Amino acid sequence: MTDLVTLQDIEAARGRIREQVRVTPLWPTQSLSERLGVPLSLKCENLQRTGSFKPRGALNMIAATPRPAGVVAGSAGNHAQGVALAASMHQLPATVFMPAEAPIAKRLATEGYGAQVELVEGPLSAAIERARAFAEERGHLFMPPFDHRYVVAGQGTVGLEILEQEPEVETLLVPAGGGGLLAGVALAVKALRPEVRVVGVQTRAMPGIVDSHRLGRRTTVPAVRTIADGVGVAGPSELTLSLIERYVDDLVEVPEDAIARAVVLLIERTKLVVEGAGALGVAALLTGVAEARGRTVAVLSGGNIDINLLDRIVERGLLDEGRRQRLTFAAANVPGELARITNALAAGGANIIEVAHELVVPGLPVGVARITVRLDVAGPEGLTRLEVALLEAGLQRAIETDFATDAAAAMPS
Amino acid sequence: MTDLVTLQDIEAARGRIREQVRVTPLWPTQSLSERLGVPLSLKCENLQRTGSFKPRGALNMIAATPRPAGVVAGSAGNHAQGVALAASMHQLPATVFMPAEAPIAKRLATEGYGAQVELVEGPLSAAIERARAFAEERGHLFMPPFDHRYVVAGQGTVGLEILEQEPEVETLLVPAGGGGLLAGVALAVKALRPEVRVVGVQTRAMPGIVDSHRLGRRTTVPAVRTIADGVGVAGPSELTLSLIERYVDDLVEVPEDAIARAVVLLIERTKLVVEGAGALGVAALLTGVAEARGRTVAVLSGGNIDINLLDRIVERGLLDEGRRQRLTFAAANVPGELARITNALAAGGANIIEVAHELVVPGLPVGVARITVRLDVAGPEGLTRLEVALLEAGLQRAIETDFATDAAAAMPS
Repeated sequence: MTDLVTLQDIEAARGRIREQVRVTPLWPTQSLSERLGVPLSLKCENLQRTGSFKPRGALNMIAATPRPAGVVAGSAGNHAQGVALAASMHQLPATVFMPAEAPIAKRLATEGYGAQVELVEGPLSAAIERARAFAEERGHLFMPPFDHRYVVAGQGTVGLEILEQEPEVETLLVPAGGGGLLAGVALAVKALRPEVRVVGVQTRAMPGIVDSHRLGRRTTVPAVRTIADGVGVAGPSELTLSLIERYVDDLVEVPEDAIARAVVLLIERTKLVVEGAGALGVAALLTGVAEARGRTVAVLSGGNIDINLLDRIVERGLLDEGRRQRLTFAAANVPGELARITNALAAGGANIIEVAHELVVPGLPVGVARITVRLDVAGPEGLTRLEVALLEAGLQRAIETDFATDAAAAMPS
Repeated sequence: MTDLVTLQDIEAARGRIREQVRVTPLWPTQSLSERLGVPLSLKCENLQRTGSFKPRGALNMIAATPRPAGVVAGSAGNHAQGVALAASMHQLPATVFMPAEAPIAKRLATEGYGAQVELVEGPLSAAIERARAFAEERGHLFMPPFDHRYVVAGQGTVGLEILEQEPEVETLLVPAGGGGLLAGVALAVKALRPEVRVVGVQTRAMPGIVDSHRLGRRTTVPAVRTIADGVGVAGPSELTLSLIERYVDDLVEVPEDAIARAVVLLIERTKLVVEGAGALGVAALLTGVAEARGRTVAVLSGGNIDINLLDRIVERGLLDEGRRQRLTFAAANVPGELARITNALAAGGANIIEVAHELVVPGLPVGVARITVRLDVAGPEGLTRLEVALLEAGLQRAIETDFATDAAAAMPS
């Protein structure tokens, strides 16, 4: 079989886009290395222009194609910004079709790079169909998010940079999604250093690419909300799947709560902001689904996390780490009960964030108040201290924590 | 007058610590440059080991001093971690006295670098006094946070790196605090490129260094809570003030809400996590108190923001930017009123975060409910759209927003 994409394509892509993209840092992280048990470095594509790796593929596709009258894409996220920037760098008009429900911040960012944004009611697929039709009608160039050899080759330049920045890499973790970045990086790395282990990581919420890999043929999953919206893709294309079959050693999936924890860990330990999709590699190491072996590089594919969600993701990460707790007490509605509880919480070293005191609750006996507190403790050590303090105050039996319920709840959308 | 610190001291410091500290990136930021109206680059000392510039001074002091039996410091923050790391790199025992109230995350981080942590009841000054006494008693080396020529010289190495990474710099913004970093950087830069404008930036909550500069003599201010706890210092020392008088062009102060906004802006636009003190330079540009002139570099001095506070800081930043709103309605307590309000909010494109519906509120007439909603809008444009929708629903007059009150409220502690 003739390769649809080759190392030469990736090297050509690099020559075409060299002046326009940043060589992002490959940043060693001592504290995460210690925590995760492997020498870990981070390939910071969250620091790439537009906040993700996407301009690489878009710039390569435009540069490698006969100059069109304009470019067109359908996207709600990073691809929209990547296409908009690439078009403006080539002085081409860009039209981006976005779902009407897309966060306005993404729309403003795309317009900020000079693209014309058209809102389309319905799901993302409707916006993509409109984009395709518009491109055909006008004779503009349609830019697919991953299903094109020029796009795959452009994303593959990330792999070339990694090999130069960390020649000793043994394990490489790459977010999967539709497979454009994963296929390109795996091809580049395996062509030059076949002994490097390349592992794709996907969110368990939308495992289309993992299922396809397991079945050995292309399959798709329905769209659901995921914290890793950057890889919220129904499945791979024939092109990306065939490259993945050939060059990727393993594909693993991680649950949503592990992704939230990884986002929080990256903020706290490395001072880097990543979006959910960008944290997949670290989440795979955290949960142990990707085996830690030798010098490891995780590709932080993007950093465009919705700031309106960041506080909720931080809260979820703290809850999942046991550092933020919600406790519910059933207390007699007599003077002094709330004081008894708050005194015990203070003695236990817990910092109160919020208190709710409710009297009329279905199922609660008359004369009994339900008191819910949200508080910060210092991890497992702090929780033990708190539990002892509550026990000493005779409050232990009154507790029902809804921590488990919380962790299992749907992610913020 | 003989200089107490010279360029040669800073160059010597660089030689001593070269193998132990990272040359942190000087990162250009296109989106902030456009927003702030100057070509701006960020010196990322938030990516330094321990998450701040502090190891530079500590490593230099240890290396330049006859080898002691151990080192001692009193600190609640970045200095503690800097000293702990520096001591461990020199295989010296370190004892750090911290206020008992210090966040447990800081204590764990300091212990993580191998230091012995002793908790001291009372303010930071009590911990520092205990550290001094302990050092004298044991014959260990006391490590001051800024008041020492070796410390100033070590921090000054940041200035040498900036000149090499951005030789065309015209304006340089440096967090002030006690003046160690500011004095060292200003000295290095002015010695080599006297035409560069060096501006110190301090939080308005603790303006000791600004007042001292204005008075021309050392003065102090009381300790208050500030979002920029890294520069929460009573005032400069004689040493740092004399260097600042000589080498710094201007000292400006910024309000707490501007610092919160800058933290949020850096997260959103540059994908970098900075603590309040680290965001001072960007806050000065945002508010216009530091004049934007030519190629500008802001030193992001540290990234150790308390993750438990991050969600509240993000919320504050969103409130201050007008992107998160709290609206209060006085509505008749009859069926359909909450639906009328929520329908109007939906029509206005606002995303509801939280709703509180209260009946018994002092001052509220019987039969009237107070409905408070917390919601996200898409900045000024979104707020206008929301206001129109509320007006059309006949709800405009019912609104009382407590935005102003919120912005003026004390910062989270």
